[in-house]
Amino acid sequence: MSAYAELERRFKRLDDLAGAQAQLQWDGAVMMPPGGATARAEQLATLAGLSHQLLVTPEIGDLLEQSEAEALDPWQTANREEMRRLRRHARALPADLVEALSQATSASEMAWREARHDDDFARLQPDLEGVVDLTRQAAAAKASAFDCQPYDALLDAYDPGTKWAQIVPIFNELESFLPEFLAATAQHQAAQPAIPFDVEIPADAQRALAPRPLAALGFDFAHGRLDESHHPFSGGTPDDVRLTTRYGPDFSHALMAVLHEGGHGLYERGLPAAWRGQPVGQARGMTLHESQSLIIEMQACRSPQFLAWLAPELCRAFQVSGPAWQTENLIRHSHRVAPGLIRVDADEVSYPLHIILRARLERALLAGDLKVAELPGAWRDGMQALLGITPADDRDGCLQDIHWPEGAFGYFPTYTLGALAAAQFFAAARSADSGIPEALGRGDFGPLLAWLRPNVHEIGSSLSTAEIVTRATGAPLGTAAFRSHLEARYGA
Amino acid sequence: MSAYAELERRFKRLDDLAGAQAQLQWDGAVMMPPGGATARAEQLATLAGLSHQLLVTPEIGDLLEQSEAEALDPWQTANREEMRRLRRHARALPADLVEALSQATSASEMAWREARHDDDFARLQPDLEGVVDLTRQAAAAKASAFDCQPYDALLDAYDPGTKWAQIVPIFNELESFLPEFLAATAQHQAAQPAIPFDVEIPADAQRALAPRPLAALGFDFAHGRLDESHHPFSGGTPDDVRLTTRYGPDFSHALMAVLHEGGHGLYERGLPAAWRGQPVGQARGMTLHESQSLIIEMQACRSPQFLAWLAPELCRAFQVSGPAWQTENLIRHSHRVAPGLIRVDADEVSYPLHIILRARLERALLAGDLKVAELPGAWRDGMQALLGITPADDRDGCLQDIHWPEGAFGYFPTYTLGALAAAQFFAAARSADSGIPEALGRGDFGPLLAWLRPNVHEIGSSLSTAEIVTRATGAPLGTAAFRSHLEARYGA
Repeated sequence: MSAYAELERRFKRLDDLAGAQAQLQWDGAVMMPPGGATARAEQLATLAGLSHQLLVTPEIGDLLEQSEAEALDPWQTANREEMRRLRRHARALPADLVEALSQATSASEMAWREARHDDDFARLQPDLEGVVDLTRQAAAAKASAFDCQPYDALLDAYDPGTKWAQIVPIFNELESFLPEFLAATAQHQAAQPAIPFDVEIPADAQRALAPRPLAALGFDFAHGRLDESHHPFSGGTPDDVRLTTRYGPDFSHALMAVLHEGGHGLYERGLPAAWRGQPVGQARGMTLHESQSLIIEMQACRSPQFLAWLAPELCRAFQVSGPAWQTENLIRHSHRVAPGLIRVDADEVSYPLHIILRARLERALLAGDLKVAELPGAWRDGMQALLGITPADDRDGCLQDIHWPEGAFGYFPTYTLGALAAAQFFAAARSADSGIPEALGRGDFGPLLAWLRPNVHEIGSSLSTAEIVTRATGAPLGTAAFRSHLEARYGA
Repeated sequence: MSAYAELERRFKRLDDLAGAQAQLQWDGAVMMPPGGATARAEQLATLAGLSHQLLVTPEIGDLLEQSEAEALDPWQTANREEMRRLRRHARALPADLVEALSQATSASEMAWREARHDDDFARLQPDLEGVVDLTRQAAAAKASAFDCQPYDALLDAYDPGTKWAQIVPIFNELESFLPEFLAATAQHQAAQPAIPFDVEIPADAQRALAPRPLAALGFDFAHGRLDESHHPFSGGTPDDVRLTTRYGPDFSHALMAVLHEGGHGLYERGLPAAWRGQPVGQARGMTLHESQSLIIEMQACRSPQFLAWLAPELCRAFQVSGPAWQTENLIRHSHRVAPGLIRVDADEVSYPLHIILRARLERALLAGDLKVAELPGAWRDGMQALLGITPADDRDGCLQDIHWPEGAFGYFPTYTLGALAAAQFFAAARSADSGIPEALGRGDFGPLLAWLRPNVHEIGSSLSTAEIVTRATGAPLGTAAFRSHLEARYGA
């Protein structure tokens, strides 16, 4: 067996362990009774520890070296590069730092739940200080190992290759027009209020409808499921995609979550089948992942064409009728824009402003320019400056997200980069096939998918995020398509 | 850290991996879409391979040796004995034989599904020949390593310490009275036929009822779930017990399956909490496991007292009434006895005869006294001799069970040993607390559980099956209590 073949065998085993972890995580959020939590956490920690051990073993280093003498095709070469990248991240942190981070983030997550519940930032502060301190150490260790800036080392874990220096001009551009655009849009929309939905749709009716638009997307129920959890997410593996949503009083939240997670699921399912289980066969990163959920939810499913298909579907499924349920009103609801306190409830115009605030604050925390104790105040000031509103408490302020307590610094920017990529991809897809919007009007995602498959999904991790975007759209990732999209959809 | 403490640490990791596997298997049977099967099989194979690797590593051997110099309490000593036993089984088989068995049983299981579906034994024959041949090799390798008889080496994997020489007189006694007793019972029952249930209970109503008797048992839904699968089973881990049943036209099948699996679940949940994750904290073996399902299903839940509690529960839950739903008729249904072709549908009188046939045939196959090609004929002859009926085809004959195709030789005897142990435990429990039957009449399993916890559940694997039975009942495992139970319940 060649050294490269042995590498593939070993990384396939690592992928099996990752698949097992994904499944156990899904179960933990969707099925597990509360009393199973401790044992589950131990199972996951053991699997993570074993994976790490199997990845950092010197034998892999030797095999990588030996494989240099072997003739590889471009996909194999790209696969080996991804193996190197994964190993680089695993080896960059000393074992005691990994252990300390794992314990600190577990404690901090728990403290966060209580702090948020009681609106008591002081309850979280000491734990979060520990996490920030350890994350700073981890960023420094990786920065030294990768010879890059500390924040870039964190970004790289979520979006390989993306640098803060590329993000700065993008966020600056967004900040230069979004606040004004948001205010103007909110103002002219106030003159055309949507008719409130006159019936609250019971969860059972929402549950019965959900598979229909998901099937229209092309979601394959032989290779996936839709269930319920407290927060919607997409998990599982490419051959067994697990989506969740949550059915509440407003049916459109659950439905849009289904479509959003469905976009994530289509990406996973569309990854190159010939490279299942290998690093190069994985999704490229969180920016592209988010671009695939948002191209479905925001670009396709909030388009007037799709909403025109959806309106009669809703009337049939929910047994409702009248002006509130007509396409025009559905569009008004779906395009409603308003500055709000909560990121996950934000519309696509204000959403990037929430991200800019978080990126700014997490960079300041890591640089030591902002103390954890100063976070609540800095949050309120930032919200006022960017969105023109101030949270009355920390629960709806800096305690709203789990990312920092769980140590996910460097993740937030990918949400907005993903939104920009989605707009850029969608514009390119429509240029390539002008029939796409019309097809969406028939509930037919085939033409859009026909473009996404070769241009995004089937590329896996064989190219970088930047290469995939440029190759598919003819331009590097930027704000132009997103801005055009907002102007077309929300402009006066 | 002492050598013994390091052993505990390592076996806890193995238990985490086992828990992960149990969860993935549960998901595969209950939740997984069909397209996930290949990836799931690979995940499970990788986890099994890693566990095996972690168990046979020489370091564990060194630690076991070093720990000899350390002072251990009796539970720790018993724990170390279980570690040794697990390692002995793992090391007894050469790696290529393990691999060959894994591949042969996978192929054979697949062939079995087709063979059974098409009633085509010839489809299975070559694969089963391969499995028998490899199992014979495995039994010989373990027999040589353990210095025991080959069949005992197989039994030991399911029921540590149990020998065929102990089973022979038990099976002989059963065979000496059961066929005649079965015929006599069937005859006198014919004079008092049960009134057929006049309504078919919809699955939804059965599903709504099921948690009620399960809660009465003492099943803790904070540490477990009840779901549905093609074949009822009990899985998961002691802190997260996953039970399944299947709702069909006859509500009593699903309900009795829930109670049977509930018994398995109570045993798992009742294992010694201080030894969670350690070998000595595990269930003792399949005989005791089956004793715990059958003491609940057969001894307790088919008792007249419990059925008297159940009857009005059924009437309320199913909104039914009339003579068919009265206690007396429920008892007649629950105690109905008749020779049948299918083991899993058998009553408790005829069940041991199915097991005797299988034990005889699997021993003959492994000894080479019976060729796989001769199995269908030998099965028909055996059924005629033991139960007085002959299957019309192999589907209802030697193709009915998955055990042999999946390589589980030596498992079948534990079903009947478990039934005997259940009768013996129940008699001892009633002697110790005469209020148990009356409590069951109130749907109260507390007194029965109060006896089972210290006498069976909380012992874990700190004693042998034989020691547990003798200690709890004052006598070695035998047929007397089972026979008395049958005579009391079914005698003319």
